[in-house]
Amino acid sequence: MANSSHDPVDPSSLGDMDPEEFRAMAHRVVDWIADYLADVDRFPVAARVSPGAIRRQLPASPPEHPEPMEHILADFERTILPGLTHWNHPGFMGYFGITGSGPGILGEMLAAALNVNAMLWMTSPSATELEEVALGWLRQLIGLPSDFFGTINDTASSSTLYALAAAREALGSLRIRQLGLPGRADLPRLRVYASEEVHSSVDKAAIVLGVGQEGLRKIPTDHAFRLDPAALSRAIAEDRERGWLPFAVVAVVGTTSTTSVDPVPDIADICQDEKLWLHVDAAYGGSAAIVPELRWALDGCDRADSIVVNPHKWLFTPIDCSVLYTRHPETLRAAFSVVPEYLRSTEGDAVRNLMDYGVSLGRRFRALKLWFVLRYFGRDGLIARLREHVQLAQELARWVDEASDFERLAPVPFSTVNLRYRPRQAGTGADAGTEEWLDRINARLEAAVNATGRAFISHTRIRGRYALHVAIGNLRTTREHVRRLWDLLRELGPAVVAEAS
Amino acid sequence: MANSSHDPVDPSSLGDMDPEEFRAMAHRVVDWIADYLADVDRFPVAARVSPGAIRRQLPASPPEHPEPMEHILADFERTILPGLTHWNHPGFMGYFGITGSGPGILGEMLAAALNVNAMLWMTSPSATELEEVALGWLRQLIGLPSDFFGTINDTASSSTLYALAAAREALGSLRIRQLGLPGRADLPRLRVYASEEVHSSVDKAAIVLGVGQEGLRKIPTDHAFRLDPAALSRAIAEDRERGWLPFAVVAVVGTTSTTSVDPVPDIADICQDEKLWLHVDAAYGGSAAIVPELRWALDGCDRADSIVVNPHKWLFTPIDCSVLYTRHPETLRAAFSVVPEYLRSTEGDAVRNLMDYGVSLGRRFRALKLWFVLRYFGRDGLIARLREHVQLAQELARWVDEASDFERLAPVPFSTVNLRYRPRQAGTGADAGTEEWLDRINARLEAAVNATGRAFISHTRIRGRYALHVAIGNLRTTREHVRRLWDLLRELGPAVVAEAS
Repeated sequence: MANSSHDPVDPSSLGDMDPEEFRAMAHRVVDWIADYLADVDRFPVAARVSPGAIRRQLPASPPEHPEPMEHILADFERTILPGLTHWNHPGFMGYFGITGSGPGILGEMLAAALNVNAMLWMTSPSATELEEVALGWLRQLIGLPSDFFGTINDTASSSTLYALAAAREALGSLRIRQLGLPGRADLPRLRVYASEEVHSSVDKAAIVLGVGQEGLRKIPTDHAFRLDPAALSRAIAEDRERGWLPFAVVAVVGTTSTTSVDPVPDIADICQDEKLWLHVDAAYGGSAAIVPELRWALDGCDRADSIVVNPHKWLFTPIDCSVLYTRHPETLRAAFSVVPEYLRSTEGDAVRNLMDYGVSLGRRFRALKLWFVLRYFGRDGLIARLREHVQLAQELARWVDEASDFERLAPVPFSTVNLRYRPRQAGTGADAGTEEWLDRINARLEAAVNATGRAFISHTRIRGRYALHVAIGNLRTTREHVRRLWDLLRELGPAVVAEAS
Repeated sequence: MANSSHDPVDPSSLGDMDPEEFRAMAHRVVDWIADYLADVDRFPVAARVSPGAIRRQLPASPPEHPEPMEHILADFERTILPGLTHWNHPGFMGYFGITGSGPGILGEMLAAALNVNAMLWMTSPSATELEEVALGWLRQLIGLPSDFFGTINDTASSSTLYALAAAREALGSLRIRQLGLPGRADLPRLRVYASEEVHSSVDKAAIVLGVGQEGLRKIPTDHAFRLDPAALSRAIAEDRERGWLPFAVVAVVGTTSTTSVDPVPDIADICQDEKLWLHVDAAYGGSAAIVPELRWALDGCDRADSIVVNPHKWLFTPIDCSVLYTRHPETLRAAFSVVPEYLRSTEGDAVRNLMDYGVSLGRRFRALKLWFVLRYFGRDGLIARLREHVQLAQELARWVDEASDFERLAPVPFSTVNLRYRPRQAGTGADAGTEEWLDRINARLEAAVNATGRAFISHTRIRGRYALHVAIGNLRTTREHVRRLWDLLRELGPAVVAEAS
């Protein structure tokens, strides 16, 4: 991005960067981004640096004097870029594949320039009202009824924390908001339930809320990694008998490891009978419900008390953008609203002030990028893209199933495949062919694939087994990239075994 | 941003926006932003819309088909823009003045395009290491010692929540993380202390952590709105006697209403004696310590256990960017680290995985914009700009002090002035001249100023009195803009009184 000219920098000057300088630099940055997006493939997906390598290239002390923007941009390319792992690379298939899409990036550019804060309606009415509109659209796209009210948070971890805070607040007569939890003879230990496959953010939420890790009881799953409702019922009954106070259940639509879908209708029945708050973590799986043949993914979720869906996961919106819907906005508000005089505004009940629905007071204009994404792709454009990702995953799953040296470790309801290499010829080591050996071989295979720079995958454990986790979700990922990964796996598998022998 | 050509949109096409289409659209957006920044002054600062006015202009249902980006951008200008309050307007002086500066916007553009996640070191080494470097620079700029470790969060509300979670975790032998708070005979009620001027985020943190609103005890302040250390000592002693368990104190450097600075050295003494976690909220005031003659602002903060400083407030970085420093990273980590298999990485202790230091798992590449800002302005450029803002505020304070019809309601240590109109001729109403009348007149004066569209101020209450709150912090704000505000206040004050009579 650099050229050879030097802008003179006057350290005594005041104000912001001159708008014409901004224009020139931003055009340069745009050209860099467009070139980058056209050809992300030219970079290794995962950074090839060792710990500290980037840090050591940067001065330990801050600059005393202003530096020309072009020097800074040149350093970005020279020093920072080699240490980046390219989540926008078509070969990125680890964790959950995501996309910072073109319309999303344009939305972020405008949001950064406007720099408005959507804490109160009046601090930028459009930011609050567009959030309402865009989340109404998303709600309709995924088929939730109109009594769900949404807000945008940074991450699903925050959304789930807020949902469980609302669940705790729903124990209204206990006045937990006012009195707190400890030192009370009238308050038993609290419990929230979720399957053993639930995301770690639920553990974190339990810790933060003062419920404690023991306040989260993990329920066994069935053969397809779905929460077992009968086991849930038994656990609740047992806990009540022992004096616990159950208050919430977290069901998952698209677990992090296997993208399994908990039986939400059954769980909703239990929550209704037991008067428990039902929160659904559909951070990944919720987007699938946009596709008609995948609409089942959110079956029963109309009965949830809250549900989180992350457009920054599988809906092409740059991070961060996590949507928390709830049918009880007044309970969420009761859990969080604290309005000091300096944040009091005059509109009263005519508006919602979105600061009242979570921890964060400052709120970026995140609705803009989501609105851009939903309009640019449109419902049928979104369906086509999500469907394509599912088809690519199904195709990979088929290849795995047909290969004699690989096995699939979980069903593939969406766009994520878990597999492992299981060679018929296990080599000559003492433990060759054991589960421990397979774990080690697959960890090495993961590293070998990622070292090629042509694809990036992650891992998980499924019933204790080391699983290679392939998640398709980037708009640039095509059949060719999935095929390339499959070729790499088959090519590198035997090499890894040979090395291990 | 629109032109007359229509891009054909093929709903069956897959993939992201074509890079050349992105290039064309992004250049157009850049020109719009550059024009906007050159001339924000042409817009009314505060949006002139009534509740629902923006929403009603937007379709209630999502688009079925893709729409051309230029239509979307045209709608942004036509529909969204009129409902925005322009925080980047030189006349914006409400709450805390902030700036989405040129280098900061460029950083956000690149971050959105790269769309990396700094949850683990390995998911983008540069993002983690640049965060370490940029926060090391900021730490040095504000004069904190090298044993402070920093992470970037979205807002000070989150940073303070995380800090108090660490303070709670520091009660290690009580095993709160594991066992939770309720239903325990061994656990008394917990208490955190802060002045009555502390930000509402501390109330929220107390609620979320299960400490409860009553678990936050507010301590009286002195004539300059600073926490009274003797009163703090008495409160702690009284609480211990009554069986409470004190665990933390929040001191403030730059309170939200009056920007007062608590006597941190005295509070640090108390915390040391009482073995309490000292968290400092320097979200606004921390940046001041970059200026040599304001270095005193952080006196004693080297003894704090944690401190929050927000570059997105008074350090020219687009929201969101809140920095939490702590001298006890291992305690913060102990409060938050939950590492499931799918997030396990192989680097071990050679790296820090920043997901371990807070609630949010997903982490945007926020360090990039901060690094751009610190380099582009440099230490002396930052000093010159912060100093200018302080001088502008001092000048306004002088004008207020010299005017017979206005009074200043608080000291002005930094760039924020609280004042009210107090006309000598109070009109003829029954309550004319009373405190209630003054409150009403000043609320109307605030509304009248904001209705001009040429300036925007907010309000607070100081010792019960309605105060007009003028915060200077935008890089585009010059003496001329402050003068304009002062002229408006003096011009509109008598008009408001005349109307009220």
